[in-house]
Amino acid sequence: MITGKNYIGTQLSANGSIKYKTFNPETNKENSSIFIEASKEEINKAVKLASQAFKEYRTFSGAQKAKFLNAIADEILALDDELIQTYCLETGLPEGRAKGERGRTVGQLRSFANLVSEGSWVEATIDTAIPDREPAPKPDLRKMFIPLGPVVVFGASNFPLAYSTAGGDTAAALAAGCPVIVKSHPMHAGTGELVASAIIKAAKVTGMPEGVFSNLNSSGIEVGQLLVSHPEVKAVGFTGSIRGGRALLDLAAKRKEPIPVFAEMGSINPVVLLPKALENRSNEIAKTYAGSITLGTGQFCTNPGLILGIQSDELNNFTKSLASEINKIPPTCMLHHKIFEGYKTNKQKVESQDNVEVVAEFNGDVKMNYAAQTIVKVKGIDFLNNSNLHLEVFGPFSMLVECENQEQLEQVIANLEGQLTGTIICDDNELQQYDNIVSAMQNRVGRIIFNGVPTGVEVCESMVHGGPYPASTDSRFSAVGITSIKRWVRPFSYQNWPNNLLPNELKNENPLQIFRSINGVKTS
Amino acid sequence: MITGKNYIGTQLSANGSIKYKTFNPETNKENSSIFIEASKEEINKAVKLASQAFKEYRTFSGAQKAKFLNAIADEILALDDELIQTYCLETGLPEGRAKGERGRTVGQLRSFANLVSEGSWVEATIDTAIPDREPAPKPDLRKMFIPLGPVVVFGASNFPLAYSTAGGDTAAALAAGCPVIVKSHPMHAGTGELVASAIIKAAKVTGMPEGVFSNLNSSGIEVGQLLVSHPEVKAVGFTGSIRGGRALLDLAAKRKEPIPVFAEMGSINPVVLLPKALENRSNEIAKTYAGSITLGTGQFCTNPGLILGIQSDELNNFTKSLASEINKIPPTCMLHHKIFEGYKTNKQKVESQDNVEVVAEFNGDVKMNYAAQTIVKVKGIDFLNNSNLHLEVFGPFSMLVECENQEQLEQVIANLEGQLTGTIICDDNELQQYDNIVSAMQNRVGRIIFNGVPTGVEVCESMVHGGPYPASTDSRFSAVGITSIKRWVRPFSYQNWPNNLLPNELKNENPLQIFRSINGVKTS
Repeated sequence: MITGKNYIGTQLSANGSIKYKTFNPETNKENSSIFIEASKEEINKAVKLASQAFKEYRTFSGAQKAKFLNAIADEILALDDELIQTYCLETGLPEGRAKGERGRTVGQLRSFANLVSEGSWVEATIDTAIPDREPAPKPDLRKMFIPLGPVVVFGASNFPLAYSTAGGDTAAALAAGCPVIVKSHPMHAGTGELVASAIIKAAKVTGMPEGVFSNLNSSGIEVGQLLVSHPEVKAVGFTGSIRGGRALLDLAAKRKEPIPVFAEMGSINPVVLLPKALENRSNEIAKTYAGSITLGTGQFCTNPGLILGIQSDELNNFTKSLASEINKIPPTCMLHHKIFEGYKTNKQKVESQDNVEVVAEFNGDVKMNYAAQTIVKVKGIDFLNNSNLHLEVFGPFSMLVECENQEQLEQVIANLEGQLTGTIICDDNELQQYDNIVSAMQNRVGRIIFNGVPTGVEVCESMVHGGPYPASTDSRFSAVGITSIKRWVRPFSYQNWPNNLLPNELKNENPLQIFRSINGVKTS
Repeated sequence: MITGKNYIGTQLSANGSIKYKTFNPETNKENSSIFIEASKEEINKAVKLASQAFKEYRTFSGAQKAKFLNAIADEILALDDELIQTYCLETGLPEGRAKGERGRTVGQLRSFANLVSEGSWVEATIDTAIPDREPAPKPDLRKMFIPLGPVVVFGASNFPLAYSTAGGDTAAALAAGCPVIVKSHPMHAGTGELVASAIIKAAKVTGMPEGVFSNLNSSGIEVGQLLVSHPEVKAVGFTGSIRGGRALLDLAAKRKEPIPVFAEMGSINPVVLLPKALENRSNEIAKTYAGSITLGTGQFCTNPGLILGIQSDELNNFTKSLASEINKIPPTCMLHHKIFEGYKTNKQKVESQDNVEVVAEFNGDVKMNYAAQTIVKVKGIDFLNNSNLHLEVFGPFSMLVECENQEQLEQVIANLEGQLTGTIICDDNELQQYDNIVSAMQNRVGRIIFNGVPTGVEVCESMVHGGPYPASTDSRFSAVGITSIKRWVRPFSYQNWPNNLLPNELKNENPLQIFRSINGVKTS
């Protein structure tokens, strides 16, 4: 049941005075539940509880944390229809998507449960002593990852389950041993509260310390600012706009004790179309890309917003074909009327630049808050000279850049801001001649794709979801996959520590049977 | 031969107008060589060369990079007496220390050479495709670490070899595949230039691209500021003061594209003396600590500047014994008269606080630039209430904090700033009763030591040299040991990439025979 209140640890609380509602973009009307923004006192209490919980939670075994994470997954599934219906009412997204995203969320929680239950993720390394070494004895040193402390998670508007309340950031932080305080996303506050109630239930059932999780309602930026500035908060996870992520990064950098902010932000995900591929299958590529551009109303961080090619008849054919395919797809609803307004505004801003040609804009009837998918075209030289053309238009929008030659294509890629992904569409033996293109692309992205689409982010160990700024604020980490746990931990060394007092991960007898490195030899 | 010029890539260059000399603290006189600070043009040229070199250098095999690193080690050894003599003239440190530090530097270079030559450090992980998975096929994803780009290294004043020109940061960055631009430390510019000449020779001999290394002279803060602000610089390594490190961190955070700064800064390295240990061997502990406090004139980042105990007769005995031991040790020379002045100023600042008792200050003759080792004592309550007492006094200085009881001791530890190390001195079965002390300490440090001294930082895989701010700017990394390479790399994914075009580390046939994770199974 949605109460509109905050979870300060296990307690429902609503002492604040600011109230708000969520919005149904399909009906263009507010939903009925009233949410009460967390007050300053509630925020401080949540952080204090998290800080106290940390003392205990950070000592919990992998098995205990796995039980908690699996229980969260179970409780989310137990929310059943109420969760799915609330999700749809608050996002305009269809039920199939809601269920798919719930599956992804549950899968992520269970994959982190498996990770910590197995235990080798702490990267235990042991260098044993050499007491008679000259000129000085070598001490016994043993290292493993330990959690950073309370983590604040900002949910993403476009993934109300998988990258929000119990999404990737929360699952990774709880797995690491960090208590989590979620700044609930105002657009899906009901979905958020339901998921929070599942986490709280799971925490009670599995005996987690009070304060291991809190969920704070927020209608604007104040709650997030107070959280990121709080001295007891030790790290921040964010998914959203460049403006929002950068503001948090700047705030965290100004603290007396600066803290890491991992923000996954903007990306226009360049796609390079090489000549032979266009020669042989431009219609097929156009069809695939019309689908990728409009998938989820283009509201994916890996949406292909930039298509790069070298001028040719084949590129012209592709452009025509893409325009035709785009027009065959019925427009879909955006997440919120504010996001719809943003789409219109940014699209207009790009279209109003010099030398921008609109090659396709869905020309049938388009309902309120539904996005008319759009393709524009510019010349390479204009793209190089006008950084306004690099603007991310969040939604089903893509810009085709027609380069003069391979050299200009390389230049365009080299001058791009950092991106989550880059894609090369080519024929089997074509890529070798474009080494410089691949190399330039690799320098600007976190993941490179061969003959596919950037949408669809597989959750697995080898996934990198992140990239050079502004794709993310720290390219040294990934926001997706089990290695994303490394954002919330630090290495810690024990020197000459008695074996019986070491954590199990570092004891001589390896009671957890984890994989370790001993005197440089990897061993299990 | 020392020319006083900058290395802009392989070219000696001296177009700037600012000139300076190094200083011999033993004679209290300037050394003869004249150094010319790098001009803005020279700085830009060095970065441009590094950026160009990166395109090629990042594709070099581990074997090629290992050859380069080993050649640097060889060329440093070949500098022989000239290096050792210059080191001594510029630091006031004895020849034995110079040779020891050279050994450490060469050892670090060779250990990174071994690391990249073996190759498994890239953490290659492979998730193979499942084309018939429902509802969507699983793509083939392969991940490994790739270098960030040009790295700027600021050498440490207190380790002119091991943490300067070809020190840990440089070795790690070159091993990672990042070109390095060193901002030379003004206090040992001659030592720096000699080492730079060794790197340049090694680069030529092993066929490295022009610009893989540059060495820029600098007398003040401007050269460093220009480097950290340069858009083509992608990461920064620094060892030094909190003020200096924080200024660089702030500068990097304000860039259009913020970049990671790993600064290893201040630490007072708390040591807890538990009662039973004091009861049984206070004289022995006092003797050991008198040695640790004065080692290298106290100019180590792991110098024990804070000794914590619970009030008792035994603690009083220890204090007397420490005072007596401290007075037996002949004072030694500091690195520079500015460092000597800083020692005096900071010591006075601490001593002038309320309720600070000076329990020992070397009372014999002390030569110019030689530091009189000093021990002061305060009550736990005063330490808790006056953060001026937490100030790092860089030099042979330590503060003894007498706590009322175990609870206050825990409070003192919990309220400490982040530290590189924490040490617990105790008897064999004493530690179990002080769980809360160990836990509080673990939360504030990067390395915890059982019955030892914090000085002496072993270079090995299990070492953590870093810790919560301000010990370092990012506790998620270590500045010492082979894992320090992770500061300069980012994970990168290939999706459905053709096997023959993948880097060797990720090819099906594993031509480098490295250790990898394939579909979650660790395998070699």
